[in-house]
Amino acid sequence: MNEFSHFDESGRPRMVDVGEKPVTLRRAVAECVLALPDKIYEALLSGGVSKGDPFKTAELGGIMAAKKTPDLIPLCHNIRLGGISVRCGLSEEERAVRIECEATANDVTGVEMEALVGATMAALVFYDMCKALDKGMIIKEARLIEKSGGRSGHWINS
Amino acid sequence: MNEFSHFDESGRPRMVDVGEKPVTLRRAVAECVLALPDKIYEALLSGGVSKGDPFKTAELGGIMAAKKTPDLIPLCHNIRLGGISVRCGLSEEERAVRIECEATANDVTGVEMEALVGATMAALVFYDMCKALDKGMIIKEARLIEKSGGRSGHWINS
Amino acid sequence: MNEFSHFDESGRPRMVDVGEKPVTLRRAVAECVLALPDKIYEALLSGGVSKGDPFKTAELGGIMAAKKTPDLIPLCHNIRLGGISVRCGLSEEERAVRIECEATANDVTGVEMEALVGATMAALVFYDMCKALDKGMIIKEARLIEKSGGRSGHWINS
Amino acid sequence: MNEFSHFDESGRPRMVDVGEKPVTLRRAVAECVLALPDKIYEALLSGGVSKGDPFKTAELGGIMAAKKTPDLIPLCHNIRLGGISVRCGLSEEERAVRIECEATANDVTGVEMEALVGATMAALVFYDMCKALDKGMIIKEARLIEKSGGRSGHWINS
Amino acid sequence: MNEFSHFDESGRPRMVDVGEKPVTLRRAVAECVLALPDKIYEALLSGGVSKGDPFKTAELGGIMAAKKTPDLIPLCHNIRLGGISVRCGLSEEERAVRIECEATANDVTGVEMEALVGATMAALVFYDMCKALDKGMIIKEARLIEKSGGRSGHWINS
Amino acid sequence: MNEFSHFDESGRPRMVDVGEKPVTLRRAVAECVLALPDKIYEALLSGGVSKGDPFKTAELGGIMAAKKTPDLIPLCHNIRLGGISVRCGLSEEERAVRIECEATANDVTGVEMEALVGATMAALVFYDMCKALDKGMIIKEARLIEKSGGRSGHWINS
Repeated sequence: MNEFSHFDESGRPRMVDVGEKPVTLRRAVAECVLALPDKIYEALLSGGVSKGDPFKTAELGGIMAAKKTPDLIPLCHNIRLGGISVRCGLSEEERAVRIECEATANDVTGVEMEALVGATMAALVFYDMCKALDKGMIIKEARLIEKSGGRSGHWINS
Repeated sequence: MNEFSHFDESGRPRMVDVGEKPVTLRRAVAECVLALPDKIYEALLSGGVSKGDPFKTAELGGIMAAKKTPDLIPLCHNIRLGGISVRCGLSEEERAVRIECEATANDVTGVEMEALVGATMAALVFYDMCKALDKGMIIKEARLIEKSGGRSGHWINS
Repeated sequence: MNEFSHFDESGRPRMVDVGEKPVTLRRAVAECVLALPDKIYEALLSGGVSKGDPFKTAELGGIMAAKKTPDLIPLCHNIRLGGISVRCGLSEEERAVRIECEATANDVTGVEMEALVGATMAALVFYDMCKALDKGMIIKEARLIEKSGGRSGHWINS
Repeated sequence: MNEFSHFDESGRPRMVDVGEKPVTLRRAVAECVLALPDKIYEALLSGGVSKGDPFKTAELGGIMAAKKTPDLIPLCHNIRLGGISVRCGLSEEERAVRIECEATANDVTGVEMEALVGATMAALVFYDMCKALDKGMIIKEARLIEKSGGRSGHWINS
Repeated sequence: MNEFSHFDESGRPRMVDVGEKPVTLRRAVAECVLALPDKIYEALLSGGVSKGDPFKTAELGGIMAAKKTPDLIPLCHNIRLGGISVRCGLSEEERAVRIECEATANDVTGVEMEALVGATMAALVFYDMCKALDKGMIIKEARLIEKSGGRSGHWINS
Repeated sequence: MNEFSHFDESGRPRMVDVGEKPVTLRRAVAECVLALPDKIYEALLSGGVSKGDPFKTAELGGIMAAKKTPDLIPLCHNIRLGGISVRCGLSEEERAVRIECEATANDVTGVEMEALVGATMAALVFYDMCKALDKGMIIKEARLIEKSGGRSGHWINS
């Protein structure tokens, strides 16, 4: 089974050599949903928390975490990220925080891991900001939504 | 609403002063479930992947990420972690990887964030090891299971 | 001249051994003033910048930088910070941003460097947020205001 | 007010997408002046401090800090720095340490922040080396002197 | 003596400016030999240690350390590594662990330091995994084996 | 074989829980010898290299690397180091650089890894400073010399 690209033929982990791969424009979008207990949801709705700061802190924390992806994912390359944005918003329907992280790079490897790290860590930053109220927040979903660029082309989570 | 302990009265973020809090034994356990597409699930079951290495890499990556928690969570303290362990296993029933991270410390603040970062990042490390096969893996759940120690005492996610 | 405590008798740098020093409550406050060109000052006054976000980003960035002090100051100890807060505000009189960073720790070494790094880096984060408008912002002053705890006792910048 | 390039139209921070910007040779120079109390100034002049080591340590610390700029400035890109140099010297006229940091890169974004971080952190490293003598050292000025390269062209602090 | 490229003419350290150097394919291989006391050698041979895990942990630790080279070597550039692999194996003849690290990059500077850091740190990770049995393991050799690419061309340690 | 303390009974790596271990004064000393090719040895002897700066840079780099030990050694604890010193000197007899690193801590775990990382990384920093002259420098030995404190008591490499 040589499709597991991070192992060489003897089962040893390696950082895949990308030296010869062409530079193309890469883009990936990941999403994370953090379900909120009533106590937190209502505190956020009633605007008591200095009007939305846990959202801004989570967005900034997610961006900074995405830049640390090669420190966190052992076999990930140090790439030159083009841009990162993180959007956090309250979904009233789901009584949840919905987070989207988009990463782009003009580079030889994809940015899926950066997008996933950014979205997921933004959720944990949000958790940290609100955990004094209730520790029962739960990440209900974190996944890659879409990626483009590179040999494997466009991919959409269907 | 002063229950959001990370904001001072003017809505400004701060790292809460814990200088006077007593040192007690803290423990937290978090869990993460990563659902696997058939292609990956079957490759893992058939043992083709050098017998389980994505699991070991994820465990190690989760431990190392948990140690970086204060770099990732803006208002988290640099504490002296006592121990961290991460367990990853294949859940045949759920066709998923189930990950548990336990963190302990003899310190003045809790270790909930360390446990959550360890479990969640282990899932993303696992994702990275297998994403060449299929990018459709999804974190279905990540949450705190239990914590003990400190003023707020024992807490179990019910 | 053995008062330069970071050099041993042969002029070699060393991280001073603090193993036997008593744990006491330490506190330090540093201040930084960033003078603003008219273009930026007026944009901030007129509230055009989504109501103060460069301030919040700078506060958060200062807190995170203060936690990295031992990575930045070669001979600084890895201490367990008790708390950090950073306050940024517009000083109309000075047409400047005035930043104050307070650090505390219940530890064997002082936290002066943490307070200075937090205040100074918050100013540079603010600079980065506004530099597209005008690169002429200038740090006019950065200094320690006060420290307490430890053998050298209370110190105030007079 | 869309001139604050780090905010998107809804006031949310983002790391600006530079994926399509052309690679050009960038250069920036920043300067920092650290005023010295008499006790330190005279100790340095009399050559008692193993002949200038706080200067070398500050230069090295400034270079290493400049490389960490993307970890310190939340919305700064991870770029591939071409070169960094830091020069620290005693200005007898000002009774101060004068520090200059030059950064260069062949990249898509400017290196102003790297130059400012390098100059400012070198001053704080110097502070740390001498603070056992007197904590009253003060950064009197830290600013960008000059930058070139990129769409905004040559800029000189006048 | 201006052959010490990391010093400028006044003896001041600097990160050499590589902005104008051409991008070429770089490759370097380093090797490290860790001699094992009998107690550890026999434990490893008898397969008692969950079948080789210290080897896998050392390989992964070496890869992650190699990515941190610019944080560890003060005047090293932040480059975009193409690939890293670390191989650890038991040499029965030498009663030692033999480690090889290969680094590649399509960049303007060489990757010798990355290969040396990867091989040497893998040895120390191995040491850490086994030190509870015996602390007498010794690195008997760590050296660059080969490098290619760049102006200085192909080099082999003879 | 449960003497490999970093693995639990199922062969899974873990960071050993030290929460209940007593705080004692720990000390460890490690040594590293870097053999020099003639070209470098003679350049250093003739004092052409701004009088010993590769030594000072290596000492400082070793101290900074030792502080990063928990980032480099996957299962190492984040401890509060008490002090670190690194001494580099030219051994005329061996035509080598001899490096000694001493680490101390008043903590629950030993500091062997910190001492070994400090000594070994100082050697690689020295290598980097001189490699433009000749890449044939070789680490001939790196080992723990002595440790004290903790349950296992005093240990000397005999």
